[in-house]
Amino acid sequence: MLSGEPAFIGSLRALATHPAARGLADDCAVLDLGDETLILTHDMMVEGIHYLPDQDMADVAWKLVATNMSDLAAKGAQPLGVLLGYMLGDDAKDARFVAGLHEALYHFNAPLLGGDTSSGGPPRSFGLTAIGKATHRPVPSRAGANAGDILWITGPVGGAMIGFEALKAGDTSNASRPYRRPDALLADGQALARHVTAMMDVSDGLLLDATRLAHASAVTIAIDSARVPIAAPEARRNEAMRWGDDYQLLFTLPPETACPVPATPIGTVIPKGSAPLLLDGEEPADKDHLGYLHR
Amino acid sequence: MLSGEPAFIGSLRALATHPAARGLADDCAVLDLGDETLILTHDMMVEGIHYLPDQDMADVAWKLVATNMSDLAAKGAQPLGVLLGYMLGDDAKDARFVAGLHEALYHFNAPLLGGDTSSGGPPRSFGLTAIGKATHRPVPSRAGANAGDILWITGPVGGAMIGFEALKAGDTSNASRPYRRPDALLADGQALARHVTAMMDVSDGLLLDATRLAHASAVTIAIDSARVPIAAPEARRNEAMRWGDDYQLLFTLPPETACPVPATPIGTVIPKGSAPLLLDGEEPADKDHLGYLHR
Repeated sequence: MLSGEPAFIGSLRALATHPAARGLADDCAVLDLGDETLILTHDMMVEGIHYLPDQDMADVAWKLVATNMSDLAAKGAQPLGVLLGYMLGDDAKDARFVAGLHEALYHFNAPLLGGDTSSGGPPRSFGLTAIGKATHRPVPSRAGANAGDILWITGPVGGAMIGFEALKAGDTSNASRPYRRPDALLADGQALARHVTAMMDVSDGLLLDATRLAHASAVTIAIDSARVPIAAPEARRNEAMRWGDDYQLLFTLPPETACPVPATPIGTVIPKGSAPLLLDGEEPADKDHLGYLHR
Repeated sequence: MLSGEPAFIGSLRALATHPAARGLADDCAVLDLGDETLILTHDMMVEGIHYLPDQDMADVAWKLVATNMSDLAAKGAQPLGVLLGYMLGDDAKDARFVAGLHEALYHFNAPLLGGDTSSGGPPRSFGLTAIGKATHRPVPSRAGANAGDILWITGPVGGAMIGFEALKAGDTSNASRPYRRPDALLADGQALARHVTAMMDVSDGLLLDATRLAHASAVTIAIDSARVPIAAPEARRNEAMRWGDDYQLLFTLPPETACPVPATPIGTVIPKGSAPLLLDGEEPADKDHLGYLHR
């Protein structure tokens, strides 16, 4: 019997029968409204789980916004605004949070529309809801990859892993920036939306997220590990492919389609076999640890 | 210098310059999109602050949905769906939460569209974002009450107070139901939207929320305390007017307008004087404690 997060999400899925929910198996909800299509996502960050308790709250605010914007990017959406759920801390930390929020909302051109505050914690926790609108319909999903498609990624993985290690060692310089201040590839997502057969953002680790794309599309994905761009020492290639937090876009294109943004082909889509993911032709070792769960 | 929640909200207000944010001074954000108008709200519930740690999680889920639906009701909105931010607990509590969520979403006809889960806590905290669409434009706000208008309320206050005391004493019968399972007056809000000059839901206490409406409308509100319907012993009238969690709709109508829903007139709107609120002709005693803050 399932327990914990898989059981909970399974029971929520039984409630999420509206087609806009996409079976809770996508990065966002996709809701037609009048002549527009809304793209909706909500991400949480919890002290000690998604960030270090002594981290600069400006970075926490940035990342909370960026992770939601990355979900919108995976749908090719244009941000309309955000709602914030905020658990108050001390005044100095709250001020840093607002400073980082301001920077992020300006960067992603997403206005603050509302939200709620509460006392409580530790651990403090925060939630952000991002609202966007589709720039192309049909809106890309994780389902849709076809055998014969090429698998692409917009940039390297492993940068957040190296950045996290730098931050844990006390380095708040650019060395830790990829972990503290990830970007969200909104413009790339919009440029890709009309071309991709499937798309998602890589938040929990390339191998885990590629497996999810394979399941959603009912295909097998074959990755050539040597082709995966990494922002980490070569000796750590395997780890880099399993670490999350880099927020690249992972997508499939028909073989004849030229990729309209800078990106790297890292594998192919093949008919569904016994394994959803092949790494250099074989099922990955340690296949229960392809990425980060419960984050 | 301000600190804590007022300071934080003040600094957020400086970011919330988009007109849809309504200066963070309303129950919801109101965002025009294509030929529709979106109504957006986000409310949090934190263990030990918004609910008792040993409370049935089905009731917590219900209330989380109901408080958000009440915000939509105050705008005359029709729910389109919700996004949930959920901090996992033990399996039995999670299952009760899902059961209550199911009941509430069915009752309010609001589909679950998406969200996020995390580990973390205690305290556990939850966030819900409700998305609705306007059924009438302009969408009612807290601003708009005019001198000469009549102040109305849809039903009694104080029921949640009595219910909370029953629950603290271990009574999980109907006696505690008004606190555990508040309703949200969506149909009333939709019927009222085209008639009201101002409207809000009473979440933090009648006197506090009436003061907010007075500030937003730049008027003074004069309440006749004897006319306020209460669901509590007469000896506790004063407390009932300061307790929150009843989720009635509080609204103003021009004197010549017949009220289209069952409701009680409890006061009048007069030109802005030195006090935003008069209770039986005088500034309320203990005016720093007109309701619940930080909830």
